Amino acid sequence: MITLHDNLVSGNGYKVRLLLALLGIEHHWIDIDLDKKESRTPEFLAVNPAGRIPVLVLEDGTALPESNAILNYLADGTGWLPSGRLDRAQVLRWQCYEQYEHEPALAVVRAWTLHPEWGPQDPAMRAALLAEKREKGTAVLGVMDEVLREAPFFVAGAPTIADLTLYAYTVVAPEGGFDLAPFPHVTAWLDRIAALPGYVPITHRPGTHRPG
Amino acid sequence: MITLHDNLVSGNGYKVRLLLALLGIEHHWIDIDLDKKESRTPEFLAVNPAGRIPVLVLEDGTALPESNAILNYLADGTGWLPSGRLDRAQVLRWQCYEQYEHEPALAVVRAWTLHPEWGPQDPAMRAALLAEKREKGTAVLGVMDEVLREAPFFVAGAPTIADLTLYAYTVVAPEGGFDLAPFPHVTAWLDRIAALPGYVPITHRPGTHRPG
Repeated sequence: MITLHDNLVSGNGYKVRLLLALLGIEHHWIDIDLDKKESRTPEFLAVNPAGRIPVLVLEDGTALPESNAILNYLADGTGWLPSGRLDRAQVLRWQCYEQYEHEPALAVVRAWTLHPEWGPQDPAMRAALLAEKREKGTAVLGVMDEVLREAPFFVAGAPTIADLTLYAYTVVAPEGGFDLAPFPHVTAWLDRIAALPGYVPITHRPGTHRPG
Repeated sequence: MITLHDNLVSGNGYKVRLLLALLGIEHHWIDIDLDKKESRTPEFLAVNPAGRIPVLVLEDGTALPESNAILNYLADGTGWLPSGRLDRAQVLRWQCYEQYEHEPALAVVRAWTLHPEWGPQDPAMRAALLAEKREKGTAVLGVMDEVLREAPFFVAGAPTIADLTLYAYTVVAPEGGFDLAPFPHVTAWLDRIAALPGYVPITHRPGTHRPG
């Protein structure tokens, strides 16, 4: 059986938990305690030298880190990843946009809000970075709203892993103080995702397994 | 014919220029002047609402932004992208690592070094962010060196777009003050890439075309 090394607070992990639920794939789920730095132990670094969750471990022991790579692996051959070369590239385009523009703004503001001990502790630097990230995050929501004004989902008119990738840190953006009300096409799209059969919220905890 | 909107200083653009050269794909090349904010004009934002280069425009006018998505599109069906599901996911894993860990450290330090007018102008904040990015960039080079100690290339023992993705901002990291000498497996891998038939350096300027 496949095993997901994960943490419940992680939106990157949630992308994978959500796809596993939507596809009904049975799996082990291991809770990595980030407060105890369990993603930085020698054992974990042997699984992922980058020291980050989530990591999917296949039945043969192969470790696959990076949420968006895991999504592509799991979705391959399902309706969640289109088969056409250009559609697949457009999925990746939005996944890259998420990792480079969306996550560093929306997810980081949320993380620093939930965990004041994370991020820079110098007050002036923290305030300046938060202001920059709030501005960028609001611009990202504006880009998403424009796209969703024209189409119900990001690629090929149907839900794909591009939507799941962008969904995870958008739905919890209000935990970082972002107001989604000015982005009605985004909120309607959030509702469409939450209505999908098999959907689970970020707070859904799969059966927990710990090694040993 | 396909058209690449690009800028010569961009490592993200270089990834695409390099693959186009290695594959010998004929293309138009349009130089977008970032100093003149040509990536923020209404015309360009209609091509990529994120306002970033590179963007590949296909013969039918479809725009595909994001360097790593473009690489997957161009490499599909060639030896630069393996056909196996797990190998493809491992390619993406390293592309995600590049976008989230490698580029924001190595590329940003280089960009702020080459363009002192970019990035935060407050001296204390700039110094603190640069110190953090230098530390992260050095850690990334260490992760790469460990991987390349065991294998000549990042995925499946042969050069793939995962290598091109990581190559672009590694080879120019010394322009940001990074010393590659402590990472001999990285420098040997840089040499292997530069020896590939069809290789071009980042300074290679394709035939320039301007619209109109």
